[in-house]
Amino acid sequence: MNDPIEDLVRLLTRLPGIGERTAVRLAHHVLAQEPEYAQALGGVLSELHQRVHPCSECGNYATELRCRICADTTRDHSRVCVVARPPDVGAIERSGGYRGRYYVLHKLLSPLDGVGPDELSIGPLLERARRGELKEAILATPLNVEGEATALYLARVLKPHGVHCSRIASGLPHGGELEYTDQVTLGRALEGRRDL
Amino acid sequence: MNDPIEDLVRLLTRLPGIGERTAVRLAHHVLAQEPEYAQALGGVLSELHQRVHPCSECGNYATELRCRICADTTRDHSRVCVVARPPDVGAIERSGGYRGRYYVLHKLLSPLDGVGPDELSIGPLLERARRGELKEAILATPLNVEGEATALYLARVLKPHGVHCSRIASGLPHGGELEYTDQVTLGRALEGRRDL
Repeated sequence: MNDPIEDLVRLLTRLPGIGERTAVRLAHHVLAQEPEYAQALGGVLSELHQRVHPCSECGNYATELRCRICADTTRDHSRVCVVARPPDVGAIERSGGYRGRYYVLHKLLSPLDGVGPDELSIGPLLERARRGELKEAILATPLNVEGEATALYLARVLKPHGVHCSRIASGLPHGGELEYTDQVTLGRALEGRRDL
Repeated sequence: MNDPIEDLVRLLTRLPGIGERTAVRLAHHVLAQEPEYAQALGGVLSELHQRVHPCSECGNYATELRCRICADTTRDHSRVCVVARPPDVGAIERSGGYRGRYYVLHKLLSPLDGVGPDELSIGPLLERARRGELKEAILATPLNVEGEATALYLARVLKPHGVHCSRIASGLPHGGELEYTDQVTLGRALEGRRDL
């Protein structure tokens, strides 16, 4: 039987930005709290992957068949904002200027990593475009090489179906990540999107 | 039923040094890992307070009745190093120069916080001194007001029982915490301890 404190420290060091010293400090902090705290945190973590799965429509994390945004009938279902990763949805939501739906790719075109057009999971998105349900797609992949390539590819496959495609405006620095951009900058980037 | 991602973020923000943005990043990192990772971390946390309890002899965290150091017969049981908090034991162990046992106070004398001599849990330590089992006590409480007061108090109650009392040497900055001190400095501080 391993030492549970050592186990905890070892597992915590696998989190981004948490070295051994920080992990030891966090473990002792948890130990010094009421047992209910560790049990609550442990319970949420243990059940996390059972309770959270991809939304059947947009690929974002969901606890039901569809995520809360896809299930929200007050949102504009003819507009889609395509992002790379689930945290990007939260970042755009916080910018407050968007009332359409999302599509989360989870990966971007990256020939060096073996991700070509066939590896992109865009089936449900293309299906909606084919059925004529989509009027507009805002391509909000990151402003780096993979994100730009993916946006250009998506514009090429969506436009033949009459989908108006736009790219979020510059305003984000080159190589920047959506998740870490402040709300005002991200709001302006959405507002100033340019046609492709 | 709450959203498990929101629950996770909320619980993570209660950890020291983890704001909401970091908590969101950590939660998404955990989600992006294999489910086994979240389950392992969740399992350790859920069981933590059941498996870890104070050592019956020194008060440090233990998984058995006695901690590994108190159970180690190769250590010098006539010497004790008195520290304020469990992480301090690990800090002194890492300095490598000490082969005696420990005593963890968990709190220091602090009249303003209502901690007087009667609130210090030093019963087992005094008992060992009374039985003549202790030759030496290294008082390694922090170099701040509470730590100094506690060290002086302990020297006063231990010396009548023939226990040689010493205070770790300066070398640690005033107000400094043992846990964050580098190994060399801590080793020197142990070596240069002065009589009280």
